[in-house]
Amino acid sequence: MIKIGIVGGTGYTGAELLRLLSGHPNAELVTITSRSEKGVPVAQLYPNLRGIVDLSFSEPNIAVLGQCDLVFFATPHGVAQGTVPAILAAGAKVIDLSADFRIRDIALWEKWYGQAHGAPQLVAEAVYGLPEFNRRAIVSANLVACPGCYPTSIQLGLLPLLEVGCVDVNDLIANSASGVSGAGRQASVANLLSEASDSFKAYSASGHRHLPEIEQGLADISGTDVSLTFVPHLLPINRGIHSTIYANLIDPAVDVQALFERRYADEPFVDVLPVGSHPETRTVRGSNFCRIAVHRPAGGNKVVVLVVEDNLTKGASGQAIQCMNLMFKLPEMAGLNLPGLMP
Amino acid sequence: MIKIGIVGGTGYTGAELLRLLSGHPNAELVTITSRSEKGVPVAQLYPNLRGIVDLSFSEPNIAVLGQCDLVFFATPHGVAQGTVPAILAAGAKVIDLSADFRIRDIALWEKWYGQAHGAPQLVAEAVYGLPEFNRRAIVSANLVACPGCYPTSIQLGLLPLLEVGCVDVNDLIANSASGVSGAGRQASVANLLSEASDSFKAYSASGHRHLPEIEQGLADISGTDVSLTFVPHLLPINRGIHSTIYANLIDPAVDVQALFERRYADEPFVDVLPVGSHPETRTVRGSNFCRIAVHRPAGGNKVVVLVVEDNLTKGASGQAIQCMNLMFKLPEMAGLNLPGLMP
Amino acid sequence: MIKIGIVGGTGYTGAELLRLLSGHPNAELVTITSRSEKGVPVAQLYPNLRGIVDLSFSEPNIAVLGQCDLVFFATPHGVAQGTVPAILAAGAKVIDLSADFRIRDIALWEKWYGQAHGAPQLVAEAVYGLPEFNRRAIVSANLVACPGCYPTSIQLGLLPLLEVGCVDVNDLIANSASGVSGAGRQASVANLLSEASDSFKAYSASGHRHLPEIEQGLADISGTDVSLTFVPHLLPINRGIHSTIYANLIDPAVDVQALFERRYADEPFVDVLPVGSHPETRTVRGSNFCRIAVHRPAGGNKVVVLVVEDNLTKGASGQAIQCMNLMFKLPEMAGLNLPGLMP
Amino acid sequence: MIKIGIVGGTGYTGAELLRLLSGHPNAELVTITSRSEKGVPVAQLYPNLRGIVDLSFSEPNIAVLGQCDLVFFATPHGVAQGTVPAILAAGAKVIDLSADFRIRDIALWEKWYGQAHGAPQLVAEAVYGLPEFNRRAIVSANLVACPGCYPTSIQLGLLPLLEVGCVDVNDLIANSASGVSGAGRQASVANLLSEASDSFKAYSASGHRHLPEIEQGLADISGTDVSLTFVPHLLPINRGIHSTIYANLIDPAVDVQALFERRYADEPFVDVLPVGSHPETRTVRGSNFCRIAVHRPAGGNKVVVLVVEDNLTKGASGQAIQCMNLMFKLPEMAGLNLPGLMP
Repeated sequence: MIKIGIVGGTGYTGAELLRLLSGHPNAELVTITSRSEKGVPVAQLYPNLRGIVDLSFSEPNIAVLGQCDLVFFATPHGVAQGTVPAILAAGAKVIDLSADFRIRDIALWEKWYGQAHGAPQLVAEAVYGLPEFNRRAIVSANLVACPGCYPTSIQLGLLPLLEVGCVDVNDLIANSASGVSGAGRQASVANLLSEASDSFKAYSASGHRHLPEIEQGLADISGTDVSLTFVPHLLPINRGIHSTIYANLIDPAVDVQALFERRYADEPFVDVLPVGSHPETRTVRGSNFCRIAVHRPAGGNKVVVLVVEDNLTKGASGQAIQCMNLMFKLPEMAGLNLPGLMP
Repeated sequence: MIKIGIVGGTGYTGAELLRLLSGHPNAELVTITSRSEKGVPVAQLYPNLRGIVDLSFSEPNIAVLGQCDLVFFATPHGVAQGTVPAILAAGAKVIDLSADFRIRDIALWEKWYGQAHGAPQLVAEAVYGLPEFNRRAIVSANLVACPGCYPTSIQLGLLPLLEVGCVDVNDLIANSASGVSGAGRQASVANLLSEASDSFKAYSASGHRHLPEIEQGLADISGTDVSLTFVPHLLPINRGIHSTIYANLIDPAVDVQALFERRYADEPFVDVLPVGSHPETRTVRGSNFCRIAVHRPAGGNKVVVLVVEDNLTKGASGQAIQCMNLMFKLPEMAGLNLPGLMP
Repeated sequence: MIKIGIVGGTGYTGAELLRLLSGHPNAELVTITSRSEKGVPVAQLYPNLRGIVDLSFSEPNIAVLGQCDLVFFATPHGVAQGTVPAILAAGAKVIDLSADFRIRDIALWEKWYGQAHGAPQLVAEAVYGLPEFNRRAIVSANLVACPGCYPTSIQLGLLPLLEVGCVDVNDLIANSASGVSGAGRQASVANLLSEASDSFKAYSASGHRHLPEIEQGLADISGTDVSLTFVPHLLPINRGIHSTIYANLIDPAVDVQALFERRYADEPFVDVLPVGSHPETRTVRGSNFCRIAVHRPAGGNKVVVLVVEDNLTKGASGQAIQCMNLMFKLPEMAGLNLPGLMP
Repeated sequence: MIKIGIVGGTGYTGAELLRLLSGHPNAELVTITSRSEKGVPVAQLYPNLRGIVDLSFSEPNIAVLGQCDLVFFATPHGVAQGTVPAILAAGAKVIDLSADFRIRDIALWEKWYGQAHGAPQLVAEAVYGLPEFNRRAIVSANLVACPGCYPTSIQLGLLPLLEVGCVDVNDLIANSASGVSGAGRQASVANLLSEASDSFKAYSASGHRHLPEIEQGLADISGTDVSLTFVPHLLPINRGIHSTIYANLIDPAVDVQALFERRYADEPFVDVLPVGSHPETRTVRGSNFCRIAVHRPAGGNKVVVLVVEDNLTKGASGQAIQCMNLMFKLPEMAGLNLPGLMP
């Protein structure tokens, strides 16, 4: 059994790690930390875990964490930077679900996150945890930076096109929409049911923190700089991300459906739908699958890619466990072979 | 008082006409027809109208309708074509909320709607009921073809840009999302709460019936053919449309915020939000307002226009009453000065 | 025109007052106060009011408020107590939407609200603003204490039964459910969309602050003490209260349907549905109507009364305006003749 | 591996069986039938099962079904009656999720379901599949009649009280509320998102088909006839039942909290919450757990029991698999140890 610690388990990605790890055949949860909820049983905060997770939150303790085989950080940005070096030094592996180690350009990170980076020396060592693009590096990583939720959906939607270079990389558009759980479990007026339900809006249309991460990822994939317009929206649902991606084909002869099917044929968690399909977020509710459909409206040169994932699962904690499975040479689907909850 | 008839009042646009007309100072509802619900009090189908609308549904009767000053058609496509000629001949004016008279190219209409057009001689006479573009023609019209819900939001979002010709008309994108009431009050599995709630999906990504209407309207505005990629999505909400529109500036010097504010300064129902805003559909719930915000992400040449409206109000029945007000020389806001229901 | 001030206009009942008063033919809004939002345009907080309400929030000022004809308090409990005396002394009338003046037994109020009462001398003078029971007293009142949302629905549901004394007053049950807007516009984790949506729960099952108000009201109606079991629940909807009320008939011969119809025949806002009906909260969304149906399952002696209202309208701000209409000898429905927003 | 057939797999209880059985360590799905969808892959109807369930629907075939170890019927009432006798005769065991074999009084069944019973000779043999009351009989059953969703929640909520006889059995009230999936996957206007969302209503207040089943079950538990008032409500959520149960204590000295904790101490799927708790339906979303809290408002003699379950899981397919585990001597939690999906 892999001994596991979780730092910052009170948020939704922490809760999702607990839900998934509780059914994982090779994982043993050793400690889960939260300064604010120290001593409180996990199942008091998340009653769905009553009878399933018996641990209580404890104060973070480097010694205890360092003896784990693997520590997940499910903390706000800026936290992992302070603690990860000591934990790595103690011999544990780390998967960070926050934004701390995702961006290689430290000045760019500091600009978007408005603070000095606390562990710049580790950034180059961190492996970006998108298995569909980076599997080999993840297998041997000690520190994995898990992709953001929007970035996962957009990179998976563009990857086949960018790898073969059949679209104009200077005019990519990602029109994305996320459920409210993406905003986390913080008290806020904007995310009250009475504010966010029965409504829809864009936000951060002039610039969102995930943009530099996505552009870095797309550049890695395509081998050249890309330019993306990214507009996120807030859906009145709990879980789920839907990205509608627009790109201009520079090679009209390409069979995009075949391209996607071929590229993802061996990917356990990427499901390319038949021609003419439209994926629904509910089909991946609580599941690690990502579903994709590709369209060319009126047979023209505009490619429209539709991508759905669960922002807490493939967009966060499920993908983190997928990385764990790779790092510990387990079957990649171990503990993750759950269908979406539908209806 | 304007004597009013409604043909096909059992659907949502019919119900919305009733709600709005019940508070209109100059309207008197004379008859409302439905073959299937003949004899049933309107308020039995729509209990919100108990104590407010006392009429019952009656069988359509040309003689009765012809004596009205104005007849609204809130019927599925294909119905108005059969009856409108007789009603116009009897001297009543007509506002058709269906798609029957929206498209001037009859062959195009017949292709998308899969049937022969029943009154092609009237198509040229019909005035497209978008007051912000077509006000003068509406004032003197006898037959108004009310725009579709998606087309209204997209045309209002692009109108200022197309009129001055500052964007590339060959690469326009409208990424739209609508509440479920847009699908009408028909029994269907796909629109059950247990299928459509807590989920999100695109549909008709390869081609939607509203596309030819939108392209015709945009061409009228810009004076040249346009090419639009239009992808509609289904929102798990009741009312509301949100269109996120992408266009490429060919004149980077233009001040798009000022352009929109100037263009809509005198429009009673189009509200241009301050720089940096993001309109929410709930702010127009049950209201005839359309709210718009304009962004240039990272100050680049991509313009992103965000538009919200209530699909049943400004997207259908409210706009129809706005046209009625114009046709009968009433104040344009008569009966329509309702704020959105928020929260 | 009645000159109106609103104290504490940032919450949902304040916003609902603004929405309803903006369409009232006899009301002129003079001032709206909020310490925290001083200087901010009302329409910035509630964009649905853009183009409709032009005022900005100002600091509360007794001199300004005292020159109004009427001041509404839409504040948390404990606030009105401090300011109402000065405003009444200045000659304005007051309608308080908070709990401050609802309960005549000051010790009981202090027990449930955990603080000393700030204006006990005014409590006896305050008139309980339930027009269906207290119309005459409201007409001549200077200070009206508007009923709570749950209490309104439960009193209206039991009033006909208690007035004729046909049920056992020692065993009344009210199983109520409210939309989340009832919890107000405060940041809270429990009312986030991601916590409260797609879920349902009871709360305060062992005792809720509205209980003493309801029991006082029911005792006033029946002329004797009553005993009520009241269990509120949280609905994953925005607006709406549904109360399911159980009582035991002591006179099985009574025709409960006729009793309700007779009692409410002349009430403009209480709508008794036909035999066998089940009222839906959506039929009163945004409306001041209260809809009621009465059942006797299997023809037995258990009476089941189903009551719906909009918690922000008939349950708060609409009822307050109904009281205003009475106090200023206006038609009782002035500004309130809006059907529910449906669909 | 237990060879399993499912008859009528297109509805929600069929889909839920597939979801749960796909992760069950001892189950092998052999056949799933549907006349209307013959030849269609299951995963086309339920895309969440893509990559997880490879079967297609086939025409019902007694020979194939008879060779299974166990056949689930997930059909509307009236269907199982026709086929079960032949399948039992062929040697397979049967678990029927419909109402066909739940009620022992055949005349009563025929009255509520409006048709003659097709297999009355099997009714006495059928075992009522509520493990918490009937475990021993289930273990040796060949035909199990799975309880309805409402009945499960109400029986579990009253069982401890009725077994010790501490409440008045002549005045029991169950105020229940169910998510829309309880109405099944049939096209209907009433259950459209645009009709049922953002609303709440009671239904069948004068009498519901589940009443005789519940009264029979409660009588079995208490050893005497009982009288229940049962009012179901429709929640604007997908999954989940919440029952609020009222009973009058005849022995005020009883410690109801201790009573419930003791009674359910060894039950793997019934979770009694601490004093003062209020269970939320979302904590059991997709899970077989039933959570219960008990209150005595103001310490009086009215007991209020709050019960939540997922109507498709513990209220249907999960409970059916729990029965299967018992019938085949597997660990009772096999394949069912899933926490609720939260958030």
